[in-house]
Amino acid sequence: MSEYTEHHMNEISVGMVEKKFYTFAEPPCEMNLESGHKLGPVTLAYETSGTLNPDKSNAILILHALSGDSHVAGYYQKEDPKPGWWDIVVGPGKGIDTDRYYVICSNVIGSCMGSTGPGSINPKTNIPYGLDFPVVTIGDMVKAQNELIEHLGINKILCVIGGSIGGMQVLEWSLRYPEKILSAIALATTPRHSALSIAFHEVARQAIIADPNWKNGKYYTGPKPDLGLSVARMIGHITYLSDESMRNKFGRRLQDKKDFSFNFDADFQVENYLRYQGKKFVERFDANSFLYITKASDYFDIAAQYGSGSLAEAFSRAKAKFLVVSFTSDWLYPTYQSRDMVKAMKKSGLDVSFCELASEWGHDSFLLPSENLSTLLKGFLGCVTSKTLH
Amino acid sequence: MSEYTEHHMNEISVGMVEKKFYTFAEPPCEMNLESGHKLGPVTLAYETSGTLNPDKSNAILILHALSGDSHVAGYYQKEDPKPGWWDIVVGPGKGIDTDRYYVICSNVIGSCMGSTGPGSINPKTNIPYGLDFPVVTIGDMVKAQNELIEHLGINKILCVIGGSIGGMQVLEWSLRYPEKILSAIALATTPRHSALSIAFHEVARQAIIADPNWKNGKYYTGPKPDLGLSVARMIGHITYLSDESMRNKFGRRLQDKKDFSFNFDADFQVENYLRYQGKKFVERFDANSFLYITKASDYFDIAAQYGSGSLAEAFSRAKAKFLVVSFTSDWLYPTYQSRDMVKAMKKSGLDVSFCELASEWGHDSFLLPSENLSTLLKGFLGCVTSKTLH
Repeated sequence: MSEYTEHHMNEISVGMVEKKFYTFAEPPCEMNLESGHKLGPVTLAYETSGTLNPDKSNAILILHALSGDSHVAGYYQKEDPKPGWWDIVVGPGKGIDTDRYYVICSNVIGSCMGSTGPGSINPKTNIPYGLDFPVVTIGDMVKAQNELIEHLGINKILCVIGGSIGGMQVLEWSLRYPEKILSAIALATTPRHSALSIAFHEVARQAIIADPNWKNGKYYTGPKPDLGLSVARMIGHITYLSDESMRNKFGRRLQDKKDFSFNFDADFQVENYLRYQGKKFVERFDANSFLYITKASDYFDIAAQYGSGSLAEAFSRAKAKFLVVSFTSDWLYPTYQSRDMVKAMKKSGLDVSFCELASEWGHDSFLLPSENLSTLLKGFLGCVTSKTLH
Repeated sequence: MSEYTEHHMNEISVGMVEKKFYTFAEPPCEMNLESGHKLGPVTLAYETSGTLNPDKSNAILILHALSGDSHVAGYYQKEDPKPGWWDIVVGPGKGIDTDRYYVICSNVIGSCMGSTGPGSINPKTNIPYGLDFPVVTIGDMVKAQNELIEHLGINKILCVIGGSIGGMQVLEWSLRYPEKILSAIALATTPRHSALSIAFHEVARQAIIADPNWKNGKYYTGPKPDLGLSVARMIGHITYLSDESMRNKFGRRLQDKKDFSFNFDADFQVENYLRYQGKKFVERFDANSFLYITKASDYFDIAAQYGSGSLAEAFSRAKAKFLVVSFTSDWLYPTYQSRDMVKAMKKSGLDVSFCELASEWGHDSFLLPSENLSTLLKGFLGCVTSKTLH
């Protein structure tokens, strides 16, 4: 991260933000899920920044990835060491300009960051759901977000934006509520998981399930499956980086010593990095939520759900103006998958811009400082806005 | 696998082979290891096929990969459902022709397939070594193989051949005993692990270490860390395949049903495949051996060990005629790593042939039936032989 970027991050910010909650689907009016099960009540944790204009036409909905949350920009408290997860992009004058737009970000259902998930109290038993929590889909997550948007009195969203699993939600929004969104930005995402992506998720899930502390998901009153979740996160981290970025970042450099340990300590910096990432993750994330959200993304398949197997047919119901962005070194959701999607969008007559950004940082690229990405977002939003905001 | 190949495999075989053992380094004359530790006695399990000619000039040494063993071709018993692991390549008239060559394959030290490893009895304690087994290197493995070769009375090996970690042993042989080998074939391998390869190994190791049955390696009298080892193997399997091969082999096909389970069962065929591979592996492999052999391969770095960081300088001590083969879809040891190695070999004036074979099967390609690979091996060996065998 360059000095310029750090300065940029610290000096220009949306400032203080607040974690808000909206609860709906109170029993007996529970939310119907795609699995056929019902869920209620449902709480969404969310955050807003910027100001909603009088005709409510400047709302941007940001959708987070697997381990993200509603805290997208700014600070909860002055003392916070770090701002929200996409502060480099969201703020006054930034790629998503909070001087112009009203930015909403909500935590998905199934997560553990304030929204209803497997760690929430099941009103029927008064203990945490665990595996009694129904398997939710990307469609269910978006359906819940729509409840929030209606609650905020917004009829039409200027743009839905998200990367990775957030990008899946963007695609789902464009098909489930085509009348409600004007434009959509899908970053580093895919219309369906490849066998390779499913494989990585499955191994990560098995790492959690293999942890005896997991106890079939009933661990909320005892020790947590930290070791399993840590391994799961380590697997994830490998897929978020790239061969090139790992070579540049770590290479074969040793950790704090000149020679091999000749034991099973972390000899290489990359080993230490992964162990650290795993350890840090268990402090903030719930293992069951990891299972549920990865499963939702594995199930996601818009061609199957909306197009009888055809991506073009699926997109024929969409109306939004699209920007699709992939990254050269992203091998989890490689550019060919974005290209297939863009082809299908064009075949359906959609207005779509596509850009493959050069980056060595793999799948994580969309989360990292990039003047190119910020400019791209700003340009696209400006273009959409000039046609709608007066 | 084509019908032709199946027929080929079943009909043309070296026939019955025998698992043999050679023990050396009896205390107090223990083997000195690169770590500075000593190990003894050391037993190597090995197998031979074909006939050693009178001047002992037709010996080929085959070196196996991570989970391999000495059983490279033919059958132990008539009832065996499957022949040795490289039977498609080793046999009468095959790529490595046992009518012409005397083929030796030995199990590496550190393994659990008959050679001395962490599961062997420690003569000092009369219980299995566990983590008291010293961390061995690729160099140590090769040093032990050299003892076997000397025991067999062979002064010069016609060719050392191996893929993956077996390929590392090939490179090590060419530098450690340059006078003892005439030629070398290194398949799907690398002169040193990238950060990405180390990362995958480290996560796999952590999956084992996280299993409470692992008990710091002391599990030989109780339940084994099967769940951890299974996850480790699943991680490995992903890296042995490729995006393309997984797409073709599994795609998003569901397992034995038409709809999603909406629970954490294996919905997709790829999930079932990985679980099956994990389960099958724990029946035949030892978790500690997995730790030791992966660590040895992570440590392997011929540029650092033999060339003060320069690959070309390292190869300047080699004398063998080389064949280097990489596979287009191998993303664990991608072609660029083979190319770097070949460049360094050429810079050192070595006689090297390089071939990148087109294959969709990823790193595992060298183990799969391929007329191209068989022809390549046969051609190279024929060329080497014409100059030496009379």
